[in-house]
Amino acid sequence: MASLPPITLCLLLLLLFVAPPTAYSLQRSSRSVPAFLNKFLRLPSKAVGGATPYKYEIRYFQQRLDHFSFADLPPFRQRYLISTEHWEGPSRLAPIFFYCGNEGDIEWFAANTGLVWELAPRFGAMVIFPEHRYYGESMPFGSREEAYKNASTLAYLTSEQALADFAVLITELKRNASAQSCPVILFGGSYGGMLATWMRLKYPHLSIGALAASAPILQFENIVSPDTFYNIVSNNFRRESVSCFNTIRESWDVIMSLGMTNTGLSLLSKTFHLCGELKSAEDLSNWLDSAYSYLAMADYPYPADFLMPLPGNPIKEVCRRMDSLPNGTNILQRIFEGISVYYNYTGTVNCFSLDDDPHGMSGWDWQACTEMIMPMASNKNTSMFPAFEYDYKSDEEYCYKSYHVTPRPTWITTEFGGHDIKTALGTFGSNIIFSNGLLDPWSGGSVLENISDTIVALVTERGAHHLDLRAATAEDPDWLVDQRASEVKLIEGWLNRYLESKRVNFLPLQSV
Amino acid sequence: MASLPPITLCLLLLLLFVAPPTAYSLQRSSRSVPAFLNKFLRLPSKAVGGATPYKYEIRYFQQRLDHFSFADLPPFRQRYLISTEHWEGPSRLAPIFFYCGNEGDIEWFAANTGLVWELAPRFGAMVIFPEHRYYGESMPFGSREEAYKNASTLAYLTSEQALADFAVLITELKRNASAQSCPVILFGGSYGGMLATWMRLKYPHLSIGALAASAPILQFENIVSPDTFYNIVSNNFRRESVSCFNTIRESWDVIMSLGMTNTGLSLLSKTFHLCGELKSAEDLSNWLDSAYSYLAMADYPYPADFLMPLPGNPIKEVCRRMDSLPNGTNILQRIFEGISVYYNYTGTVNCFSLDDDPHGMSGWDWQACTEMIMPMASNKNTSMFPAFEYDYKSDEEYCYKSYHVTPRPTWITTEFGGHDIKTALGTFGSNIIFSNGLLDPWSGGSVLENISDTIVALVTERGAHHLDLRAATAEDPDWLVDQRASEVKLIEGWLNRYLESKRVNFLPLQSV
Repeated sequence: MASLPPITLCLLLLLLFVAPPTAYSLQRSSRSVPAFLNKFLRLPSKAVGGATPYKYEIRYFQQRLDHFSFADLPPFRQRYLISTEHWEGPSRLAPIFFYCGNEGDIEWFAANTGLVWELAPRFGAMVIFPEHRYYGESMPFGSREEAYKNASTLAYLTSEQALADFAVLITELKRNASAQSCPVILFGGSYGGMLATWMRLKYPHLSIGALAASAPILQFENIVSPDTFYNIVSNNFRRESVSCFNTIRESWDVIMSLGMTNTGLSLLSKTFHLCGELKSAEDLSNWLDSAYSYLAMADYPYPADFLMPLPGNPIKEVCRRMDSLPNGTNILQRIFEGISVYYNYTGTVNCFSLDDDPHGMSGWDWQACTEMIMPMASNKNTSMFPAFEYDYKSDEEYCYKSYHVTPRPTWITTEFGGHDIKTALGTFGSNIIFSNGLLDPWSGGSVLENISDTIVALVTERGAHHLDLRAATAEDPDWLVDQRASEVKLIEGWLNRYLESKRVNFLPLQSV
Repeated sequence: MASLPPITLCLLLLLLFVAPPTAYSLQRSSRSVPAFLNKFLRLPSKAVGGATPYKYEIRYFQQRLDHFSFADLPPFRQRYLISTEHWEGPSRLAPIFFYCGNEGDIEWFAANTGLVWELAPRFGAMVIFPEHRYYGESMPFGSREEAYKNASTLAYLTSEQALADFAVLITELKRNASAQSCPVILFGGSYGGMLATWMRLKYPHLSIGALAASAPILQFENIVSPDTFYNIVSNNFRRESVSCFNTIRESWDVIMSLGMTNTGLSLLSKTFHLCGELKSAEDLSNWLDSAYSYLAMADYPYPADFLMPLPGNPIKEVCRRMDSLPNGTNILQRIFEGISVYYNYTGTVNCFSLDDDPHGMSGWDWQACTEMIMPMASNKNTSMFPAFEYDYKSDEEYCYKSYHVTPRPTWITTEFGGHDIKTALGTFGSNIIFSNGLLDPWSGGSVLENISDTIVALVTERGAHHLDLRAATAEDPDWLVDQRASEVKLIEGWLNRYLESKRVNFLPLQSV
């Protein structure tokens, strides 16, 4: 870590004593909270794609842009990955494993969802990874530039349309393979897990069960408290180290106060090794906020490279580094040291760019401005983040300013339910596994209790964001091995019951 | 009945002996088969609306035109009828009876669905009759003319959008009445019954059960044989009188042969008392075909005025009139005598106009050209109608020619299921009554067997098209009284179980 010039240090120390902890009111909104995926994550390059151990064909399927109207719109090509290597075919009623592709390049999800590939030979399953419209190569209007041009071209980026894409694709692929009777098992993680759940609810005739990992289907409207997410992140840090928690908690005021001085932004830029000059202290806060939140999501027990290359138990490592600096080290240096675990664990980054998406139009940002209205807040008593209340109005303004679109904050619950989930899911749903790790900040908006005999929650205390979907490793702790074994057992049960019911149907009628 | 000039009679008699029964191939397609509702039915006038014994308020609700995209489209006003006269309110968790409005003016359905009104006081229920978009007053783009202008304005007339209208309306009305916990019971007849079923499947969190009367949810793709409809109509006539069945069966050749002669169309126009000159014999065939089919739908055991004012057991009356003409009466006179039961039972019609919809654009015609692709055929061995095979291509051509739209024949089953209905509905559905009468030609495409403990079929041998939904009368036969009693019992059961589950939830937790 570069050392700071003496004048900077003095200024920092001065601020540390001068700035009152609540000297300003931070202007925040849910808009700045992290999405499921990190915008800094490294998308798969050809090299990365080539490095995956999984073999598949890449195919394309023509889809309607609006399944629910007959408006004359151009169709688009949906990409999907398919492997029939282990499939035992229609005569055996062999299953089809269908991953509900979420907000990113499908090859990235295929590479990071080892479980599906590892289970395929065991079940004699076909594997399909369809890409979500408006992500990866599955662009309407011919290109990302056209698809993301404005609200009128982005209009069809909705979860209902994505589900209908899946429904049409499943139906057509089964028809083409004469596999109409082969059972489909859905998989999905995070938003993909929400889609898998919703597929079970909206298209129950097209699958027999779903593994929905880390799927916060209840993080809408007023179903769960909006401060859930940040409370979980904060608890994860406090659990590792109270001083680490306090350092982070106190850092926001220091940053914001410094941001208000003449030379403060320049000083912050230097302290955090930014490639360019900081435009506002808030940009830095958001960058730090993201890191803490993603650290909580990726707080896996062994080194992994999901959102970023990280060590095992990365929060422990962040806190170890922060805490182990000598007494008297200034707070921002501690923060920088900690945050480097997230942004620069490989040590190869010379400087940091806070915004690698200068146009600001990302698919998830659009979705979060239309349907995916997940209220977020930070509670001053329990959170290490700056306190803020959920402010729908400011989100609405942001969305109108950005896209000329007005969000529909009550739509997802109208369309998919969510209030009184036990009665609803318990009455009409079946065969869903909600797997969650309590370290995952999204677990607060997910289903953590069994709802019926067939809608079960597998909750792991030390799990983070859908670790269970990843490939098995030699380092897997016992609880993870057990969790996956439970999942396999449940899926086996669904398949056996389905096959039994079919065998009954296959019997010739004795008499009518 | 006017007598025919001698020369005409001679020509007719000649044709009767000369024309071989299968001398021509009738160009027919599913397009000419009847929809659920008769295009000749009398829509409610203000007088009719005013005459209904049911009291309600008329209100309007602003809806999105495309619920599943964020395209910038003009909202429209959905009309709905509401009565809270008997509602016992949220504190009693009193139910909401919600009729899923179908392809017509909602006041007409409200006037013809007495059952809902009669059950409301018994259950302390609120009653809501929402109108289906693009029908009655619920016109997008401000007027029927604009809404029906072309495929781009009609694009949003789909069942999924109608269901979403219902979902949003239910959610908002419940919120406004603080009635979130009040159970909703859905009702629907015919296409409205299909909508009620699909509401249970797609929005199970918004209702606790549905009475789906005469809802042919299986009349799609290759689920049931396409000749089902015409076989049932034919059987209904044969059951009453074999000679009547034969007269009708033989009449088509006579009509078509006559239509091919120089003076034949003029002769047919006179024989059938048409107001204008017939343009083709096929127009007459379609007009007759419609009458037979609607007679089967409305073959109620007592006089009713649903599609048309008709006597009790109208098919019996048609056959009685046809058969009772003296020996030697020519076949077309018999047909005219019979058909007059349907088109002119009141005896007030001086001449008949075959097409009261000169623009041809009706809402159901659009729906039948887009999603509602119900294959129809007529089997030469079992049907009294001219034989024809299901020909999707000709339907497709008609639709493209009429609207520049291409139908999606496999979409409804992809979206709502239907193949393997027992497994699908039995696994994921609950609380649906499929009521059907076997005289109804649509019963062949409906659910006629119990699927589970809570998805039950109430089948009546002598019932026609959703007679059970009509108001009770002194003439109701026992089987109809019994059928309604079974419906009430089932609905009571749903409500009791719901209330019980809520009472459990209302108990304070003893410990956590």
